[in-house]
Amino acid sequence: MIPFCAAVDWGTSSFRLWLLSKDGAVLAERRSDEGMMRAAGAGFDAVLERHLAGLGVEETLPVIICGMAGARQGWREAGYLDTPADVADIIRNALVVDGYARDVRILPGIAQREADAPDVMRGEETQLLGLVADGVRSGLVCMPGTHSKWVTLGGSKVEGFSTYMTGELFDVLSRHSILSAAMSGASEIAPDDAGFLEAVKLGFARPSSLSNLLFLVRSAQLLGFVPASDGAARLSGLLIGHELASAMASQDAIEEVVLVASGGLGALYRAGLERQGVVVRHCDAGDAALRGLWSAAQAFWAD
Amino acid sequence: MIPFCAAVDWGTSSFRLWLLSKDGAVLAERRSDEGMMRAAGAGFDAVLERHLAGLGVEETLPVIICGMAGARQGWREAGYLDTPADVADIIRNALVVDGYARDVRILPGIAQREADAPDVMRGEETQLLGLVADGVRSGLVCMPGTHSKWVTLGGSKVEGFSTYMTGELFDVLSRHSILSAAMSGASEIAPDDAGFLEAVKLGFARPSSLSNLLFLVRSAQLLGFVPASDGAARLSGLLIGHELASAMASQDAIEEVVLVASGGLGALYRAGLERQGVVVRHCDAGDAALRGLWSAAQAFWAD
Repeated sequence: MIPFCAAVDWGTSSFRLWLLSKDGAVLAERRSDEGMMRAAGAGFDAVLERHLAGLGVEETLPVIICGMAGARQGWREAGYLDTPADVADIIRNALVVDGYARDVRILPGIAQREADAPDVMRGEETQLLGLVADGVRSGLVCMPGTHSKWVTLGGSKVEGFSTYMTGELFDVLSRHSILSAAMSGASEIAPDDAGFLEAVKLGFARPSSLSNLLFLVRSAQLLGFVPASDGAARLSGLLIGHELASAMASQDAIEEVVLVASGGLGALYRAGLERQGVVVRHCDAGDAALRGLWSAAQAFWAD
Repeated sequence: MIPFCAAVDWGTSSFRLWLLSKDGAVLAERRSDEGMMRAAGAGFDAVLERHLAGLGVEETLPVIICGMAGARQGWREAGYLDTPADVADIIRNALVVDGYARDVRILPGIAQREADAPDVMRGEETQLLGLVADGVRSGLVCMPGTHSKWVTLGGSKVEGFSTYMTGELFDVLSRHSILSAAMSGASEIAPDDAGFLEAVKLGFARPSSLSNLLFLVRSAQLLGFVPASDGAARLSGLLIGHELASAMASQDAIEEVVLVASGGLGALYRAGLERQGVVVRHCDAGDAALRGLWSAAQAFWAD
């Protein structure tokens, strides 16, 4: 089949490209760790063209991009829409990369310009565009990751959102703090791990004591209250429990959460949410991004 | 004057030695960064003897030590007293370093063996011994640092305590997370810095949203709500505010807090506490450790 366009989800530390046919079928896919941080050194155009050349793509094929490539420190700054933001407006506000041989467009992020809750997203707005294209409306959306986002969607509008540093806290604490001495166990955490579920419960019950509960991950091992093997599961559980408590406290009674996540992380959040009696509607994060990029590509280039 | 003993506060990353006369006067002092982490490689005895030789001390002078030298990964494991622990019992439970030319004793730590709040201290118990020797009784004691301790003292007994990872969270987040991009300003934080005080208030008001508030340190700068110069002050303020909220929530009405701290950190905590309407009684942390070590030395070696 003849390629119609290439779609790229360009994150802080990851690069993912799909080659799409006119009807949205994935003809080929490439992944690498050439996210914004590495691509800023190598050159965004060089990274993109090498991947396209590797797929034998012709020089006129258009490319649609979302994510950190549009950040100030990215390829070109694609700006932000302000909340409340209709996700369809992402398409209308795409930035055309000027002076470039092929038609390359970068989708903008969304900013919440509120003095008491200033917040930004880049990449998740395109996943939300994908959700809306797939019929999701008016709900609370949880998007776990390095910087987890909780989004209130009203119709096709992003009404507001909050970011939690959950994934990055796990990463820096497990690698650079005294808790590294408590991380001897397996790095892969099972969603039914007893230590993980206990810690989710604790973090959810006592979110205002996070800084204390984190230390207890280590002291509980030192004093023999918990095995040395489940430190990573407990750290992850505490941070996820803290996030769920804070995000859910700001809402009225929550019955359903749309969970946009991939792989193991999605399974951990689903387990944590279900323990709180929430119905989880799960969407794969990669599928959502692809669907959003495809919506934009159709708007630009379909006859 | 003839030295009576040497007293050592041997922390995780710092070493501090005082040469004391029979009446407790400081004859000489040495400081270095040969804490437990470095001394474990160089050899604790080698580090100690080099400092003593540098002061021309004779081979029979006794040495009293507190802190991480008594940890499992330290020189010799000096064990723990269990809460509720009378600080005077620290002296009776000192560990004599056997097979050593001079009389060297290491004071034990204190453990709180409670399944829902397992916790440990090493070093702070000696500062508490010093406080009690100086007449402090029955109060709430705040001991800020890498791992801040909040201690409930009843008479001369440590009834219970809680550790907060405040200092280490500041360190790892400002160096290893996305917040490093928000730390361009001065590293020295003034206790009357407006950004610091605003952040203390925010962290205190919303302790259960710490993981969200941390991200806002960065996004508030990105969106122009705060200057790029006070990121470190805001991060410090959020973490201290969170700690104060959690530590003070577990207590009945608090009128006075005994603050055991040195230098700039003490000034930041004093400012944060006073904003909550608390009367602060300030003791220098180094003086408290010295006073505690001196109490133990007198019990061992005074005629």
